[in-house]
Amino acid sequence: MATDVSQPEAESTRSESGYRQPQPSVAALTEFLDGEYAEVRALVRSNLAKHRELLHEAEELGVDAYRDRVRDVLLEVAATGQTALGMPKEYGGAADVGASVAAFETMAFGDLSLLVKIGVQFGLFAGAIQQLGSREHHDAYLPGAIDGSLLGCFAMTERGHGSDVQALGTTATYDPATDEFVINTPDDNSRKDYIGNAARHAQLAVVFAQLHISDHSEGVHAFVVPLRDGERVLPGVRIEDSGRKLGLNGVDNGQIWFDDVRVPRTALLNRFADVSTEGVYSSSIDSPNRRFFTMLGTLVLGRVSVGGGGINASKVALNIAVRYADRRRQFAAGDDQPEQLLLDYGQHQRRLLPLVAHTYALHFAQEVLVERLGEVFGSEDADEDTRRALESRAAGTKAFGTWHATRTIQECREACGGAGYMARNRFAALKADTDVFTTFEGDNTVLLQLVAKGLLTGYSSDFSDLDQLGMVRFVAELAVETVIERTSVAKLLERVKDLLPGGDEWDQEAGLLDPNFQQAMLRFREEHMISGVARRLKSGVADGMDAGEVFSAVQDHVIATARAHVERLVLDAFIDKVAAMPDSDEKVALGLLVDLHALTTIEADRAWFMEHGRLTVQRSKAISREINSLCRKVRPLAVDFVDAFGIPEEVLRAEELLSWQ
Amino acid sequence: MATDVSQPEAESTRSESGYRQPQPSVAALTEFLDGEYAEVRALVRSNLAKHRELLHEAEELGVDAYRDRVRDVLLEVAATGQTALGMPKEYGGAADVGASVAAFETMAFGDLSLLVKIGVQFGLFAGAIQQLGSREHHDAYLPGAIDGSLLGCFAMTERGHGSDVQALGTTATYDPATDEFVINTPDDNSRKDYIGNAARHAQLAVVFAQLHISDHSEGVHAFVVPLRDGERVLPGVRIEDSGRKLGLNGVDNGQIWFDDVRVPRTALLNRFADVSTEGVYSSSIDSPNRRFFTMLGTLVLGRVSVGGGGINASKVALNIAVRYADRRRQFAAGDDQPEQLLLDYGQHQRRLLPLVAHTYALHFAQEVLVERLGEVFGSEDADEDTRRALESRAAGTKAFGTWHATRTIQECREACGGAGYMARNRFAALKADTDVFTTFEGDNTVLLQLVAKGLLTGYSSDFSDLDQLGMVRFVAELAVETVIERTSVAKLLERVKDLLPGGDEWDQEAGLLDPNFQQAMLRFREEHMISGVARRLKSGVADGMDAGEVFSAVQDHVIATARAHVERLVLDAFIDKVAAMPDSDEKVALGLLVDLHALTTIEADRAWFMEHGRLTVQRSKAISREINSLCRKVRPLAVDFVDAFGIPEEVLRAEELLSWQ
Repeated sequence: MATDVSQPEAESTRSESGYRQPQPSVAALTEFLDGEYAEVRALVRSNLAKHRELLHEAEELGVDAYRDRVRDVLLEVAATGQTALGMPKEYGGAADVGASVAAFETMAFGDLSLLVKIGVQFGLFAGAIQQLGSREHHDAYLPGAIDGSLLGCFAMTERGHGSDVQALGTTATYDPATDEFVINTPDDNSRKDYIGNAARHAQLAVVFAQLHISDHSEGVHAFVVPLRDGERVLPGVRIEDSGRKLGLNGVDNGQIWFDDVRVPRTALLNRFADVSTEGVYSSSIDSPNRRFFTMLGTLVLGRVSVGGGGINASKVALNIAVRYADRRRQFAAGDDQPEQLLLDYGQHQRRLLPLVAHTYALHFAQEVLVERLGEVFGSEDADEDTRRALESRAAGTKAFGTWHATRTIQECREACGGAGYMARNRFAALKADTDVFTTFEGDNTVLLQLVAKGLLTGYSSDFSDLDQLGMVRFVAELAVETVIERTSVAKLLERVKDLLPGGDEWDQEAGLLDPNFQQAMLRFREEHMISGVARRLKSGVADGMDAGEVFSAVQDHVIATARAHVERLVLDAFIDKVAAMPDSDEKVALGLLVDLHALTTIEADRAWFMEHGRLTVQRSKAISREINSLCRKVRPLAVDFVDAFGIPEEVLRAEELLSWQ
Repeated sequence: MATDVSQPEAESTRSESGYRQPQPSVAALTEFLDGEYAEVRALVRSNLAKHRELLHEAEELGVDAYRDRVRDVLLEVAATGQTALGMPKEYGGAADVGASVAAFETMAFGDLSLLVKIGVQFGLFAGAIQQLGSREHHDAYLPGAIDGSLLGCFAMTERGHGSDVQALGTTATYDPATDEFVINTPDDNSRKDYIGNAARHAQLAVVFAQLHISDHSEGVHAFVVPLRDGERVLPGVRIEDSGRKLGLNGVDNGQIWFDDVRVPRTALLNRFADVSTEGVYSSSIDSPNRRFFTMLGTLVLGRVSVGGGGINASKVALNIAVRYADRRRQFAAGDDQPEQLLLDYGQHQRRLLPLVAHTYALHFAQEVLVERLGEVFGSEDADEDTRRALESRAAGTKAFGTWHATRTIQECREACGGAGYMARNRFAALKADTDVFTTFEGDNTVLLQLVAKGLLTGYSSDFSDLDQLGMVRFVAELAVETVIERTSVAKLLERVKDLLPGGDEWDQEAGLLDPNFQQAMLRFREEHMISGVARRLKSGVADGMDAGEVFSAVQDHVIATARAHVERLVLDAFIDKVAAMPDSDEKVALGLLVDLHALTTIEADRAWFMEHGRLTVQRSKAISREINSLCRKVRPLAVDFVDAFGIPEEVLRAEELLSWQ
């Protein structure tokens, strides 16, 4: 104990002999981060720099003027081709979903109302037309949707049905007499709520509604419904402004009610299901659940985008806070000594540097996710398991990326003190705008339940046919055999032990900086938690408990299991990406971040590891010491790491923080 | 393990026999929470209800109009006497500092710009005149300051000297030729920054500056300096608007520069130190450090107020989120079953109910703090130790209360989903406005260092004479003997064992719901950490390490120690308050919250307790199960608990959440 405090000293001595501080090139790090979409990201960076004034205007303009300005910039950005990359080539796109996500997430360095409006118009609205519609819909709407001359919205969420889309209340009733659907809002809980583009700019909406034919319900389907002619709202449609929000006030969210609005039969986006003139329903997908799930599966792109947006917004906050901490001095050690830089304080390192490491980890986890997305979107016949695994990964990465943004931006704001509270220093908008990222495109807690369900069923059982959200229903229909096959503890330990030598003592022998140790720890925890939840569910159902009660009692374990899974995916991605690099100072530098990320992840849940015999008290304390040592090693590289994010200086603003002297 | 899931069942059965659910009266709980200041709080509630429109106007008005409106409401509120309670009786006050804090913190149920403007005018500005000035200053300024006809500001913080007040750059140089002080801003880092009331409304400022007499510096003193004549800024004074902030935009923060502004010798607030016409400096306090500290000690009231504001803002968020969760249904367990209330989900209980318990705990910790404050303010000769202990308690409670607000409001926003993002549902302003509470009136991290320093020196050594912020300087001058006397582990264990029977096994034998166990756990951790930090500092200094380096290496332990101390104070306060209640259903109900608060506090740091041999794996898991059981017991009382906060329905707004059906 008495030698604890001298360890830094000892280590820096050892450093001089054994540890050589890497000298990574910022440009090389940026190139590695940008990956295969460097060109796309360069285009976005130039668009961001060009429209840098928007960040300032966001504070100065009134709500309506700001919304119009965001629309205008959206049109200018669209004209550069940046927002069409995911669209089919015949409509001027690049048919490259990866490029599309890269463009979107890079845009998160700038004004986030613009980002979200772009997401609504090109991702959700145009995306729904493209993915759920057939050729006629594409021809009719995609050109305008892509160049922005036809603004639209994605009218799914309802006041009373946010997370539970299968329970939507809006109806689309087929009327064979006129060959039309009648769109109706039966009650106020079924009004479309918080719909982006609705309050001011949208001409059209893709409306999700229960399809009724001759009093029979076929479940939720999507319809193209005109909202406005110019600025005039059409008869039967009522739109109200959602009003002022915490942030994102450059996006015109609205509420929509339909009062028996008639649209032609062809308004049904009929790629997966159709209704004939005679009112006969047909679908290429037999199971109603699977059909619903397939249509909802188009949401995956939105989740991937929002998660990436959260990760990149975090980079902006970290760039400002780390560079400020490397310039700002506070408190002298003595009268004859200069004040010390904030980033030289151990506590300040502990606040910021693990967040830098997590941001890198999430960046590469997102890169892996986008690769998988490209594989699935690029192939017509990706199997169901692969799609489900992708959706699960997207859900988990979205939840982690957006919670990470909330946490990181808050920590960075506080680390910049009172100056961090000034709007001109970026944190105000970053905080306010990203706050809803944890909610929209799927509430994070609900998404983690989706992840857990995939783990419990291996993505492949009949149970994944249930709607993706109803964990309670899932439990209610739980067949014990489905989950039990994963629960053998012996098998589980076998699986983990493959990763490491050392037999039962693998976790005591391995070095803390051995990636195999780090991965094995997270994998062990994940497998252990999956089997534990499965057993609890099973015994609850077997004891005849009410499904809701079983689920409620196990819910915290369910969420913890999903977290453990996603943390493992993130670590694997980070380790794999860095391991694949050619030897270089950049590789060594990123290796420090891998270790810092891995060990702080284990440290944060060290109680669990101790409770489950995978961490001794001594080893747990050693991890905390190792983290402090890693912070000291990362500290001289910190500014390089955040500069490598490649955020255009024009959009950072925060002049008083970044030029502090 | 297989029986885990049936435990809730087993417990609810046991409940039917052994556990009787208390039926507390909301009115009785409110009466208990309001304590001795029920009348004052009633006045504030009526003022809040009367000015409820301000919450709406905050969203609709432009910045200047909003600021003026806040000023107007401030004057109306002042006319009711609410804001003068802490002022001397001869100026129309009640000389009751406790009443003054109670009024202020209750005001946090409403618009927080109004709260902060009230704090600036009556707490900081009028408070500085009262506490640092003499009779002449009181006569000249207090009547106008109290009725609001004389608005002023508290010009302490500078751009380059936020937390380190002893290093302020503004100078006040005595000129014996004219019997005047010359106030000057030597460089841009010494401009007064973020000064409330400065940009628009203040006529006067209390300016903190380095007093120079004949090239000799006497340290920081406070001076009354006119800023404006009506709306015209006076010659030599330059004021710029700080610009738009994340929140609190109803407060006109500004930056101030002084260019050789001359004020009469009597402008020095001379209660503790004076300068004669001949330029001879005199003070009733010999030590310059102690003198500085005494003057700064007046900040304690601001910290107590801000902490209370954070705690009460949390109550607003919890009232909305808990009541919404008790009305909103989501996901049915089966087609024939109704959707389940959000608050019946285990995860939702885990999200919200511990926060309710922590809020009650902090409320009572604040009540104890205010009692101590009253004792010290009420006696001219409270000894130094008592004052230091009060300042430490105020610093810790401020840090905890404001971090709690940030965390609680965020969690409640997310728990209300998309609706929580709408400004009309209160969370937007709550989040944005309270965010800076963790920074102003002392950065929370710096405050925790102050707390730790008090612990290490027992408040009484010479080292507490150092400025309250410079931990590094403290370490640099560390005398090993000062801290060593507290580090005997044997003594420490003795002290803890007094609390519990059972010898060395006390922590294994005691019931989890035994308050002696809960208190002993927190006390053991605190004492252990204090001795650990002391030893680390000692060995670092003894090894000849640079003081800054020692401090940096130990800083995370220093902060953790302060946290452990404050958590213990909070738990002690909560337990003592509830223990002192007469037997009643309210006492039983609050007992559940005590247990929930205590066990979630221990659970959150269960890794530490395991690492230090005070928690076995089995017992750690038992605590988590007990918490889930407590959540189920608290759940039926949750709405009563948040209604008991007594927040006027008029200021809750959030109609769509609170009337959900």
